Amino acid sequence: MNVTVRGRTQHYRTVAFDRARNAVLLVEQRLLPHEFKIVATKNFRETATAIHDMIVRGAPAIAATAAYGLAQGALAFRGSDLRKFSRHLDMVYQTLKAARPTAVDPVNALNGVRAIMRRGKTVTEQQLLALAVAEEFANEDVRHCEAIGRHGVKLIRNGMKILTHCNAGWLACVDIGTATASLYAAQAQGKKFHVFCDETRPRSQGATLTAWELAQQGISHQVIADNAAGHLMQRGEIDLVIVGSDRTLGRTGEVTNKIGTYTKAVVAKRHGIPFYVAIPLSTIDWKLKSGFNIPIEERCESEVLGAWGTISTPSLRYSITPRFARRAYVRVANPTSGARNPGFDVTPPELITGIITPAGIFKPKELWKNRHSLGFAD
Amino acid sequence: MNVTVRGRTQHYRTVAFDRARNAVLLVEQRLLPHEFKIVATKNFRETATAIHDMIVRGAPAIAATAAYGLAQGALAFRGSDLRKFSRHLDMVYQTLKAARPTAVDPVNALNGVRAIMRRGKTVTEQQLLALAVAEEFANEDVRHCEAIGRHGVKLIRNGMKILTHCNAGWLACVDIGTATASLYAAQAQGKKFHVFCDETRPRSQGATLTAWELAQQGISHQVIADNAAGHLMQRGEIDLVIVGSDRTLGRTGEVTNKIGTYTKAVVAKRHGIPFYVAIPLSTIDWKLKSGFNIPIEERCESEVLGAWGTISTPSLRYSITPRFARRAYVRVANPTSGARNPGFDVTPPELITGIITPAGIFKPKELWKNRHSLGFAD
Repeated sequence: MNVTVRGRTQHYRTVAFDRARNAVLLVEQRLLPHEFKIVATKNFRETATAIHDMIVRGAPAIAATAAYGLAQGALAFRGSDLRKFSRHLDMVYQTLKAARPTAVDPVNALNGVRAIMRRGKTVTEQQLLALAVAEEFANEDVRHCEAIGRHGVKLIRNGMKILTHCNAGWLACVDIGTATASLYAAQAQGKKFHVFCDETRPRSQGATLTAWELAQQGISHQVIADNAAGHLMQRGEIDLVIVGSDRTLGRTGEVTNKIGTYTKAVVAKRHGIPFYVAIPLSTIDWKLKSGFNIPIEERCESEVLGAWGTISTPSLRYSITPRFARRAYVRVANPTSGARNPGFDVTPPELITGIITPAGIFKPKELWKNRHSLGFAD
Repeated sequence: MNVTVRGRTQHYRTVAFDRARNAVLLVEQRLLPHEFKIVATKNFRETATAIHDMIVRGAPAIAATAAYGLAQGALAFRGSDLRKFSRHLDMVYQTLKAARPTAVDPVNALNGVRAIMRRGKTVTEQQLLALAVAEEFANEDVRHCEAIGRHGVKLIRNGMKILTHCNAGWLACVDIGTATASLYAAQAQGKKFHVFCDETRPRSQGATLTAWELAQQGISHQVIADNAAGHLMQRGEIDLVIVGSDRTLGRTGEVTNKIGTYTKAVVAKRHGIPFYVAIPLSTIDWKLKSGFNIPIEERCESEVLGAWGTISTPSLRYSITPRFARRAYVRVANPTSGARNPGFDVTPPELITGIITPAGIFKPKELWKNRHSLGFAD
């Protein structure tokens, strides 16, 4: 998407590849929203570190980064010995795979690149195939997000107020995003609407990343405390909810997403507000038979007990030039108290109006029936 | 309640009066949970400033502070001229009334003290009456909270997990608190239970004040993000919800409380979890006929866009001795984004299992029928 830095607007992907330098280019997401910076990883080890250290986050974005990382590692090999090349590539593969051990998307991406590049008969052929497949992988992600936008845009009418939760935006993908795709498509069609971004405690991805994205694209929006969404729904100030998903069960239509999603869905249902989930095909889990079996990651207490930000004064915007602002963690809670911190929750299908996929919008219970158009492999 | 400072445990009221020094003693709540300090206001002007600057907050606590402030002002008068005394007292009254212009409880308290002290025939008699009435006002608040605890304690069974929202604890009252009264009573009976404190963004009173209170009393508890409450309810980890109220409509049973209360009530209802509201009689509004007519205060954007705390490192508890910790505001949200910040929401009676009052537990719709035992004056 477009980003304006010091008055200059330019298009960036979250993940891209610089062939001349054999470098993966990443938006340094840990500095956002206070500073925009592109990081170029010089080799596959740096790329693995960037994944591990969460310079890049969001399943589709990590997957594309891993795919590029494998190509980067392959291209760095000097020589024509296929067996040496293969051993080298194993090491590259393992290094990238180990960067975020619990995520399944990067492993699928790595396997996909490796399977096709093996068709090459020489080291050079395999190197070029690796890059071509990685590029195609990234481009496909963008096409899928565009398709989500084409379907979802029909839900957005002029004057609507739309609630989002967490960040399922272009920063989580290669470009465009999933939950945000419909918003950007509606903007392109000249529709006027307003977005409420749940701040999404404890990690505040809504207040930081989604708000930053929408501000960059010039979309009218406001941040709200997670507590305020129910009140706004009750007073008729929210017409539509669109969220993303970390894992959607293809058999049941249950949606795992950032903690708090379930609560918004319950209140939306009470007020008859349409609740949509936008997903890339890669996050559909065709195996699990019950959302109750999804392990819910218990994250670090410190996320709940405090907050990260830049030291500031409450009344000022731009009080300090962002790049000189001092980033700090403040302890908010009582120093002798602990916390519970479940990272995700599961929303049952009866609370979900529809699931926006690259292949169209489906009722959650209809995913299984339509599994073949949704990429299910028997 | 009891507070332990540097190993020494002592009983404190949130608001008390030191007759020898003619000083109002207040817990300096802006320093909590990082530092515990008692402030002694030297004269009624300082007391008014303490109310204005929110050293003391919570309707019952402010009301008691105003009552003591009036007595303090009266006692400071030298002379026996009743007309001069009366003019002096008018000025004291106006100063204290102006400290928090929108709150109704302190005005009721000031009027109550003034009405009775006028029965005194000399300046000295009026001065002594003022103090006696202020003391009685504070003591009555404590008795009411004790009564809430006696009724509410029956709801708490061994092993329960209880959710609270915001702070309706002893810090908001003279002592004991409203939502917390049942917890302290259950603890006194030797019952074992665990409390989840909603952090209560954007002002985080749950993470700061309620968590501090419970820690001081040695009650098992954890802070959770507001987003996590629904998930815990869904997984059967919450058995009971008890919250406070800023204004309860006696005619309809609607409850106004801190933003986020409504959302928790909706999800609790879905899971059949009992949802109780503990209230002092002073917060019942017998006039309003619809919760939709309650004006919802829109507060400052900066509360949502950032957080107050002490600069720390995420991994450490007690990283810095609290009194030397530097308090700071960090900007969390995107610097170019704004916020909506409604301070309260309205929970309808059908979501409320019962209202715990000093006079017993009532169904929300039964308040009106029982108005005479609940202090309603025709």
